[in-house]
Amino acid sequence: MDPDAVAKAFVEHYYRTFDSNRAALVSLYQDGSMLTFEGGKIQGAQAIAAKLTSLPFEQCLHAVSTVDCQPSGPQGGMLVFVSGQLRLAGEEHALKFSQMFHLMPTPQGSFYVQNDIFRLNYA
Amino acid sequence: MDPDAVAKAFVEHYYRTFDSNRAALVSLYQDGSMLTFEGGKIQGAQAIAAKLTSLPFEQCLHAVSTVDCQPSGPQGGMLVFVSGQLRLAGEEHALKFSQMFHLMPTPQGSFYVQNDIFRLNYA
Repeated sequence: MDPDAVAKAFVEHYYRTFDSNRAALVSLYQDGSMLTFEGGKIQGAQAIAAKLTSLPFEQCLHAVSTVDCQPSGPQGGMLVFVSGQLRLAGEEHALKFSQMFHLMPTPQGSFYVQNDIFRLNYA
Repeated sequence: MDPDAVAKAFVEHYYRTFDSNRAALVSLYQDGSMLTFEGGKIQGAQAIAAKLTSLPFEQCLHAVSTVDCQPSGPQGGMLVFVSGQLRLAGEEHALKFSQMFHLMPTPQGSFYVQNDIFRLNYA
């Protein structure tokens, strides 16, 4: 499958899950996964899911603007770089964000998130 | 050495070189390196340096806002995620950008850029 198509499909799946059932994101991470969220580092699927579900907003909607991807090396990993807007329920203005994922293949032919770095783009 | 310190030192070196002697960036890439610049993919140190030196501006100044880093896997690689502002000579407003680097160790104990993805953050 075309890597760009895989990256786009992953990104759509990730944000659809984030916006509809955030706790289910736990299945996309593993014990060795790492998230850096606005500068804070969190390791492991359970801790990452706990962080994401405890963010101080309930409803949100991600709108993706760009998705770039590159192979990360001989292990079949993929780097995915996203820019987009995040709209929170009750907030008038959307927040711009950039996020990168390092996806690694699973034995089942799918991918998990090895690295995840998220930053809001402040004006 | 602390990975965050390595990442910060690399980022400072990269943008100082970009802003003062762009052609010298060629030494930071290798033949297998890949750059995605505003959606366009370029492979190999020579082609990447040619792209960077042919950008339609002469003088520029990068100001870094945030640097995040994570280890990328067992090969000793490092993911570096940067946000900042790019000021072009003669332009009143700075452009906001996000950029990620995947650094891999060299036998000499230094790092080269395996992956590089750059995006301007449009308003």
